[in-house]
Amino acid sequence: MTHTEQLAAFMADLRYEQLPQAVLDRTEELYLDWLGSALASQDRHPIPLFERYAQTMGPETGKAKILVSGKYTSAYFAALVNGASSHLVEQDDLHNSSVLHPATVVFPAALAAAQDLGCSGQELLLATVVGYEAGIRIGEFLGRSHYRIFHTTATVGTLAAAVTVGKLLKFDREQFINLLGTAGTQAAGLWEFLRDAADSKQLHTAKAAADGVLAAYLTAEGLSGARNILEGDQGMAAGMSSDANPGKLSDRLGSRWALCETSFKLHASCRHTHPAADALLALMQAQGLGHEQIEQVTTRVHQGAIDVLGRVDVPSSVHQAKFSMGTVLGLIAVHGKAGLPEFEQFALHDPRVASFRAKVRMQLDTEVDAAYPQRWLGRVEVLTLDGRLVQGAIDDPKGDPGNTLSRTELEDKFRRLLAFAGHKDSARTDELINQAWNLRHCASVNSLC
Amino acid sequence: MTHTEQLAAFMADLRYEQLPQAVLDRTEELYLDWLGSALASQDRHPIPLFERYAQTMGPETGKAKILVSGKYTSAYFAALVNGASSHLVEQDDLHNSSVLHPATVVFPAALAAAQDLGCSGQELLLATVVGYEAGIRIGEFLGRSHYRIFHTTATVGTLAAAVTVGKLLKFDREQFINLLGTAGTQAAGLWEFLRDAADSKQLHTAKAAADGVLAAYLTAEGLSGARNILEGDQGMAAGMSSDANPGKLSDRLGSRWALCETSFKLHASCRHTHPAADALLALMQAQGLGHEQIEQVTTRVHQGAIDVLGRVDVPSSVHQAKFSMGTVLGLIAVHGKAGLPEFEQFALHDPRVASFRAKVRMQLDTEVDAAYPQRWLGRVEVLTLDGRLVQGAIDDPKGDPGNTLSRTELEDKFRRLLAFAGHKDSARTDELINQAWNLRHCASVNSLC
Repeated sequence: MTHTEQLAAFMADLRYEQLPQAVLDRTEELYLDWLGSALASQDRHPIPLFERYAQTMGPETGKAKILVSGKYTSAYFAALVNGASSHLVEQDDLHNSSVLHPATVVFPAALAAAQDLGCSGQELLLATVVGYEAGIRIGEFLGRSHYRIFHTTATVGTLAAAVTVGKLLKFDREQFINLLGTAGTQAAGLWEFLRDAADSKQLHTAKAAADGVLAAYLTAEGLSGARNILEGDQGMAAGMSSDANPGKLSDRLGSRWALCETSFKLHASCRHTHPAADALLALMQAQGLGHEQIEQVTTRVHQGAIDVLGRVDVPSSVHQAKFSMGTVLGLIAVHGKAGLPEFEQFALHDPRVASFRAKVRMQLDTEVDAAYPQRWLGRVEVLTLDGRLVQGAIDDPKGDPGNTLSRTELEDKFRRLLAFAGHKDSARTDELINQAWNLRHCASVNSLC
Repeated sequence: MTHTEQLAAFMADLRYEQLPQAVLDRTEELYLDWLGSALASQDRHPIPLFERYAQTMGPETGKAKILVSGKYTSAYFAALVNGASSHLVEQDDLHNSSVLHPATVVFPAALAAAQDLGCSGQELLLATVVGYEAGIRIGEFLGRSHYRIFHTTATVGTLAAAVTVGKLLKFDREQFINLLGTAGTQAAGLWEFLRDAADSKQLHTAKAAADGVLAAYLTAEGLSGARNILEGDQGMAAGMSSDANPGKLSDRLGSRWALCETSFKLHASCRHTHPAADALLALMQAQGLGHEQIEQVTTRVHQGAIDVLGRVDVPSSVHQAKFSMGTVLGLIAVHGKAGLPEFEQFALHDPRVASFRAKVRMQLDTEVDAAYPQRWLGRVEVLTLDGRLVQGAIDDPKGDPGNTLSRTELEDKFRRLLAFAGHKDSARTDELINQAWNLRHCASVNSLC
């Protein structure tokens, strides 16, 4: 069997009973973490644009819920709006070595289709695991060269969302092969938007989730796709990667649970800023340093951080500030954290943060770069005003599997996200948390959210 | 101004009154030619799958018409189904040097949005011209390396469809810049499906037309996009081309009307087979040769023909047979033509065609390859059973601008396409033809079709 065929067989054959307890636990945690991100962006640009588009083009009723509005529509449009809203506040999860944000593409597709189909919580969990396991391996397969130009969460996200829905539709191996073809030939998303602070990041996750639904429903109808879209001579790797590694597609299927390697985000910024943020915070605390005592910060980073963060000096929007290393370190140094309220209040308008931002530079580090993307090492060098050069280092940013968030910390984060969006009903918040921790016992996902 | 900015200015500023008479005439002809293709695929796989998908996900009513069914829905789903149906029978137009099929992406988006917006025929014509002029130039810009892996009609088609709708929405320069960014970051479509006879070609045109609608409507709402999606460091050319030529984007805007360079298809097969088909037919007629007198045919072709046609020896479906040089030449040699009825009846099941197919081979020709894609030269060498080696050559395949179809020939083709789809109402056919020839006088496109 080819690597693609092995992957298709795994997806078709995996049963709920085969999922280890730790995988089920983590999937419920990822669900709650995602739900917070999806709800937190209510009323924030550009999410209302997607809601209006869904009203213009979609049906006025349906079984799938648009989370930010509570309205119901068809699965395609619910996946579209929820896919957009999950990725806006930069609090959704990330898998390191694939550089894929799985939740923001997998869960919107999963929930919308599961509601449309009337699935159980166990079916939702099983499909989610399939989406994570396949998506992460496809991301790893396409490699670093792909991520240099293409937004992996958009491109690979389309396939991850598609196979998630395919599992809800109980596809066999042959259908999964066709589904990969139909999803892979729609895979798109370029990083070019970043330097303009454009709205494409939300468009990317919206389209990945929605096109995943489209691909799966058309495959269910009988649409055929290329049988070798990943590895073929005119397939994704041929067109969009120069360092693809086919063995990654079937890497330890059924024994390695890549879903459990996924990191939760503590800071509300691009994950490429987190290692340095944690290293700086630890160093300042250990040395008792205040932001006003620091003259210069050099963050020693991997090339991917420079590619994604290096385009913008002075951010022009809160969202763009999440991709500014200097702004994130400024928030950390001045305010001690870089959560959603700090970004809203201080990222653009605090002169101390702006002053600190100008002191920060990035420098490629061969050790850090060699460890990436498997490990995201944090290394900072700080020159103090009194002339000392001190160094900070962390090997597992907060939220990484080796330094994860507990269920209590995840609940706190969820409450912060909902409070940020203006949700004042704490009983409702408690109910959503309770739903997540009991997802495997949920008879029908139509009762969720 | 950058080339992209020049293109955006052209699109925003172009007025109907500036369109030369020849451009208006040709646009009406392209409309009729497209409409025939869109209607001809009624009830043929995979079009009903797209219709069912539109029913599942879309609204039950709307202002935009699904041509094959006569049902109404929203602009997104009408563009989706009409985009799929326009490209199935391989009779839709082609622009040589961009290797773009403009009609199948531009007209479905144009008609759906124009019906949704209640536009006039003149507005439809103007928007169509914008879609052709921009799409063709973007295809030329991305070059031959792009087409080697990517289906240009899918990728560039997304932008062509988007700007067509943008013109209906009366976008200014700034909106067109954003629209290009939002459409370009969705551009996708790989050739990998061809070797499997998979259904992706219809998916590609469906998605290009529909995503073009999506991009334009979201831009109208205020969604921003990358400002340099074509030429930027992490844009389309950076990710999907190795021979991009930015100057092509602004090539003689307003004086060169690329729309008029578009070719009509006579044979119902991939355009890469047409030069050889015409050369063989002319040679056999000139020499009085019958198919049974021919031992071997060598077609001397450009590399693009080998890339697209060279994957399959024995076709397994009628659609795949349209990409088989041997089958097309077999139909020409045995039946004298390769129209829709010949493909249906003889492409897979006529032993004489199969026998002739085995006699055909393709060989790269440096002269033909150097002329491509500006000119598609036809060169064949025929070895006869009695040992003669004879050569045939044509420089302008039938349908090319230098050897175009007259309005009478286009009407005949339209009647053949509708007859193929089982349309028996000749008064209705006459009415559709009459509508096309009077498109510029149409007060509202809602009365069309």
